[in-house]
Amino acid sequence: MVSPDTRVTVLAGGVGAARFLAGLVRVVEPAGVTAVVNVADDVDLFGLRVSPDLDTVTYTLAGVVSPETGWGLVDETWQAMATVERLGGPTWFRLGDRDLGTHLYRTRRLAEGAPLSTVTAEIAGGWGAPCRILPVSDDRIETRVTLTDGREIGFQEYFVRERHAVEVAAVRFAGADDARPAPGVLEAIDDADVVVIAPSNPVVSIGPLLAVAGLHERLAAKRQRVVGVSPLIGGRALKGPADRLLRELGERPDAVGVARRYRDLAATAVIDTVDAPLAAEIEALGVRAVVTDTIMRDPETAGALAARTVEAAVASS
Amino acid sequence: MVSPDTRVTVLAGGVGAARFLAGLVRVVEPAGVTAVVNVADDVDLFGLRVSPDLDTVTYTLAGVVSPETGWGLVDETWQAMATVERLGGPTWFRLGDRDLGTHLYRTRRLAEGAPLSTVTAEIAGGWGAPCRILPVSDDRIETRVTLTDGREIGFQEYFVRERHAVEVAAVRFAGADDARPAPGVLEAIDDADVVVIAPSNPVVSIGPLLAVAGLHERLAAKRQRVVGVSPLIGGRALKGPADRLLRELGERPDAVGVARRYRDLAATAVIDTVDAPLAAEIEALGVRAVVTDTIMRDPETAGALAARTVEAAVASS
Repeated sequence: MVSPDTRVTVLAGGVGAARFLAGLVRVVEPAGVTAVVNVADDVDLFGLRVSPDLDTVTYTLAGVVSPETGWGLVDETWQAMATVERLGGPTWFRLGDRDLGTHLYRTRRLAEGAPLSTVTAEIAGGWGAPCRILPVSDDRIETRVTLTDGREIGFQEYFVRERHAVEVAAVRFAGADDARPAPGVLEAIDDADVVVIAPSNPVVSIGPLLAVAGLHERLAAKRQRVVGVSPLIGGRALKGPADRLLRELGERPDAVGVARRYRDLAATAVIDTVDAPLAAEIEALGVRAVVTDTIMRDPETAGALAARTVEAAVASS
Repeated sequence: MVSPDTRVTVLAGGVGAARFLAGLVRVVEPAGVTAVVNVADDVDLFGLRVSPDLDTVTYTLAGVVSPETGWGLVDETWQAMATVERLGGPTWFRLGDRDLGTHLYRTRRLAEGAPLSTVTAEIAGGWGAPCRILPVSDDRIETRVTLTDGREIGFQEYFVRERHAVEVAAVRFAGADDARPAPGVLEAIDDADVVVIAPSNPVVSIGPLLAVAGLHERLAAKRQRVVGVSPLIGGRALKGPADRLLRELGERPDAVGVARRYRDLAATAVIDTVDAPLAAEIEALGVRAVVTDTIMRDPETAGALAARTVEAAVASS
């Protein structure tokens, strides 16, 4: 049993992390949960600042996410994009009308000088997210993807426009060297009973978080209470290019590769039952492997995964 | 009878000018019509460039304007603003979802370095406006309103947020001294058979146009072929604060005041039948007064007014 008072901080990307968080707030007090969210996917579109991972986490936790996609808002309409299309503008990144209001609000507040962490709290409050949501940094970090043909493109161009169907030679996080953690981020790690690295893409979702000054060190310092959930099941990502990216970067595209990435930071790895045969290899890395069902079909199964994950870290420490 | 080949250039503000133009393209070839439109009402909202007069003219000429308001788009929805409201953002300037697409497109193209005149042509083409629409300038001009309490506010703050229910001490057009006419504007005046000053607010719609270098001189040079349509009927504006503004600025708030404003530029004034008693005073200014029904109830009556206006200028020259 997980104590509802357990304070849990979750390093989060987008859809997978959001579902995990929605499960987590069913099994521990939401007031004790902090999501530290990737911002390296953020993109300026049409003059508006779009923060896909922050919004996916916010909308999911607030119960207003589109159930069909796992991102964007329920009951969405697409009138603004229909106009952009009519005028011949780019439509590869589709912004819904309801969602646009979030971007309008964020863009205005940032232009007024409010830091992203403040604006994020306002947006999370407005939509009704029950726990704290922090951008990993108020500074700009941008994932840049170098393709094997030598071109370097932005993350959303890679992920959405190219549908991640192009071969990657390298990934870098522009600005990460100078990015400071947003207020509260390091404290949320230090003060947590358990830190979870969510089942997000280890390269492009968790990678930028760990590149922010202090994050790596603070996690390493409490390694016994840090647990990583593998987003790879049977060597495949349920969504997105995590498997292919790891392979293209010369790493093992499976739960072992993920555990290796996190081995200095996380004493425990949660892996799917289909990957039980990999447990011994993970343990050989000095990482305890906990085998459970990791597919989050609905809030109930996400809650069960969250409970199992938090229990594992508590037991480990 | 007006020859359909008559080339007509119209100095235009928002709703009144748009209706006049929609009537005009019924009585002359649209290919020979150029609208030179005020941009001093333009405003940056949520990071987006909004050009209210250009859009009102474009939407009206394209037949997609909201029939209820005379501005904005038909079949509009307001989902984005509902989100902004939920988040506690400012909602005094309401941007519809369909309309937002135009602002997204414009903002992106301007950021790419395209001049406003190019972007305006693209937007007009996309929506299907049948005649040429030019911003008076590609440079930024901003109407600034000084209130009698000493505060200076932007035009949309005065017009929309305060609903023009505050007393005005002065109006200025910031940037107008350095603004150059957009490509084609001076030629459209020089080459026109007739230039119409539309029934728009003479202070804040036509005023900024005349403040752009060269406009005043070019109009004065062809004064016999320039005709102004009074937006004031019986001393009242059908819409907006033209009457009150003229009074507050110490001018006559009626068709005589309007004719006096334009007397150096326009040999002819078109005034409403209810203002027939003012004709003699206008003629005493050296301006020929043409009396007709100027209320544009529908495209037919707008067409009749446009025909009468163009005829008057041709007859005058």
